[in-house]
Amino acid sequence: MATINKNYLKLPGSYLFSDIAKKVKKFADANPEAEIIRLGIGDVTRPLAPAVIKALHAAVDEMGQAETFRGYAPDLGYEFLRDTIAREDFQKRGCDIAPDEIFVSDGAKCDCGNIQELFATDNRIAVCDPVYPVYVDSNVMAGRTGDYDPTTDRFGNVVYMTCSAENGFVPQLPEEKPDLIYLCFPNNPTGAVITKNELQKWVDYANENDCVILYDAAYEAFITEENIPHSIYECDGAKNCAVEFRSFSKTAGFTGLRLGFTVIPKDLTCKGEKLHPLWARRHGTKYNGAPYIVQRAGEAIYTPEGRAQIMEQIGYYRENAKIILEGLQSAGYTVSGGVNAPYIWLKCPDGMSSWQFFDHLLQKANVVGTPGVGFGPGGEGYFRLTAFGDRDKTAQAVERIKAL
Amino acid sequence: MATINKNYLKLPGSYLFSDIAKKVKKFADANPEAEIIRLGIGDVTRPLAPAVIKALHAAVDEMGQAETFRGYAPDLGYEFLRDTIAREDFQKRGCDIAPDEIFVSDGAKCDCGNIQELFATDNRIAVCDPVYPVYVDSNVMAGRTGDYDPTTDRFGNVVYMTCSAENGFVPQLPEEKPDLIYLCFPNNPTGAVITKNELQKWVDYANENDCVILYDAAYEAFITEENIPHSIYECDGAKNCAVEFRSFSKTAGFTGLRLGFTVIPKDLTCKGEKLHPLWARRHGTKYNGAPYIVQRAGEAIYTPEGRAQIMEQIGYYRENAKIILEGLQSAGYTVSGGVNAPYIWLKCPDGMSSWQFFDHLLQKANVVGTPGVGFGPGGEGYFRLTAFGDRDKTAQAVERIKAL
Repeated sequence: MATINKNYLKLPGSYLFSDIAKKVKKFADANPEAEIIRLGIGDVTRPLAPAVIKALHAAVDEMGQAETFRGYAPDLGYEFLRDTIAREDFQKRGCDIAPDEIFVSDGAKCDCGNIQELFATDNRIAVCDPVYPVYVDSNVMAGRTGDYDPTTDRFGNVVYMTCSAENGFVPQLPEEKPDLIYLCFPNNPTGAVITKNELQKWVDYANENDCVILYDAAYEAFITEENIPHSIYECDGAKNCAVEFRSFSKTAGFTGLRLGFTVIPKDLTCKGEKLHPLWARRHGTKYNGAPYIVQRAGEAIYTPEGRAQIMEQIGYYRENAKIILEGLQSAGYTVSGGVNAPYIWLKCPDGMSSWQFFDHLLQKANVVGTPGVGFGPGGEGYFRLTAFGDRDKTAQAVERIKAL
Repeated sequence: MATINKNYLKLPGSYLFSDIAKKVKKFADANPEAEIIRLGIGDVTRPLAPAVIKALHAAVDEMGQAETFRGYAPDLGYEFLRDTIAREDFQKRGCDIAPDEIFVSDGAKCDCGNIQELFATDNRIAVCDPVYPVYVDSNVMAGRTGDYDPTTDRFGNVVYMTCSAENGFVPQLPEEKPDLIYLCFPNNPTGAVITKNELQKWVDYANENDCVILYDAAYEAFITEENIPHSIYECDGAKNCAVEFRSFSKTAGFTGLRLGFTVIPKDLTCKGEKLHPLWARRHGTKYNGAPYIVQRAGEAIYTPEGRAQIMEQIGYYRENAKIILEGLQSAGYTVSGGVNAPYIWLKCPDGMSSWQFFDHLLQKANVVGTPGVGFGPGGEGYFRLTAFGDRDKTAQAVERIKAL
């Protein structure tokens, strides 16, 4: 008799964005004249860069001719893309990462969700609170987290690392030793970053305690300040303890095109077993490579032309972030993030809860954001705004909030 | 201390295609004048249909304009594609499948590999022998198969259903009751098909024994004969016991574009638990949707123009299959498949093993195929040729084999 994986039933409903949508719909129906501005979901709005469009058209044409048609891609990605990534994203930053340590995929979300498969089910994970939900949920599904406690909104067998104003939203090294540590910098949802010196401490801790760090660097393109590492491999010894996830989604607006990659150094072992061949085997068994045309699109962002265009795009979002950040600061809000990240994290005023502030902002300013508590109990009393919107609407939203 | 998922270590090396490549390279190096014809790997060679190319260009242009740019796709697929699939592939064949029972993905391989996650790890799988390796390997990784026995080339806790000339390469209902049953028709590697009456027996068996059938219909577009079901949902009661996987790879040459879908009926339960919300949750957590441009490409094959073009393409491969099948038959080979499938399965002559015949064919005819034993011990003494090659080369290969 077939039976289901009961770990799935441990997951509490994932209602954050559907709850938001319902509340917004209800308000819009009751207030048809309100011009609602959405700064909630972390999806980009700028069109793909001309160099990317050009590369896509060229690759599509190749697929239409017998002489240049491409069937199955190499499971791990085309060499032209892996070589380019290794050189541009790593070697030029002094990180000794080889092309065959790069695994091209259809996005960092998939890779972040799938990576846990390589580890034993009794491994214990550590995550920040608040946190991007995929890290925890994928481990719940695999039976690695224990049961959910609705009174604390936490799972029994997870090490939660609180990120609060007290620690600048950068976690402290955990006292209870985990096996796997998820870190995301620049951070979603808080927009916080970690300095190279601070990240080095995590790498040293992981090497001392035989932990593996699962490092999500999906937002690295938004870093503006010096001494903030773009890759964990800028730290000494990271090749022995860290996997890194990267994405083209926010770097080049590929959320609807799907491209990302994961770095698994060949030196990375767990109790003497290398992770690299396991991930290669996983890719070979359960994945069939990212589309050729999308890999060519990815390659295009590394050309001088493509680079200039995506930097302009990122500049647009950065300016949005600045407008939100400075506007809210001038209005007396306690705000962080936004300088090296597309997310602005603000403390709800007057002791409001995340959802109270959501309702307040929707009703009084007709602006939609994301309640911080949706990312975990550590996010209660906070609120996330994103810089991925239209410039004029973003500025208008800020003016409305300032006028509250 | 992080430790690996040791189930991965149970997998024997996957050397089939790399062993083939090595042998071919060695032969080619020693015989530089030999014109080698490859009919081994199941990858298509015809370019994408003009309607698909047109749809891709149009969608790429949409992605380049702010007004029509698309970010994250719906996790489960765009409605325009799900509606089209439900209508064209199912409702028009009398199968009562709704759009929201269709989950669009980047391919049947991924879905076939990932589906096992929804089930308890103590569920026992049944597979055909020979078999597409993904079904077994993905279950090995999850710890569902027991250990590998190199003397039998089999895993301890798997129900193997032998497919041989005696049963026309269609398995018999297993005596030992499994929980999950993988079936693939038209079959890879044998090219065998199952009649509707025979498939109905499997559906009845699954419903009587509370099994779930995981039905891989990736090659359904190659069916030419009446009374061969294109979908398992043509059978009564299948919505209560079967998941179906479909692919655009062989239907429309999308091996390098990546698009497929899985059907999970809302009526399908395991001990009262519905599978549909579990797969939706999996998609939502570990997947981010197929690219918009690729979903538009998929939609294009359902237009009258697109349909005509892909039928012409499939016709081309079918004619290749016919040339191989009839040519080998006329030369006295025992051959099956090829009528409703792109694969021709032949019995190695003179008692040769699969690899002996591989060497024989490579050396004497300079033709590359796939040794049947690579798909499991049940394939020993057999050999697979594919119809996905170039017409002239395919005909030439057959002439060479006939001349042996």
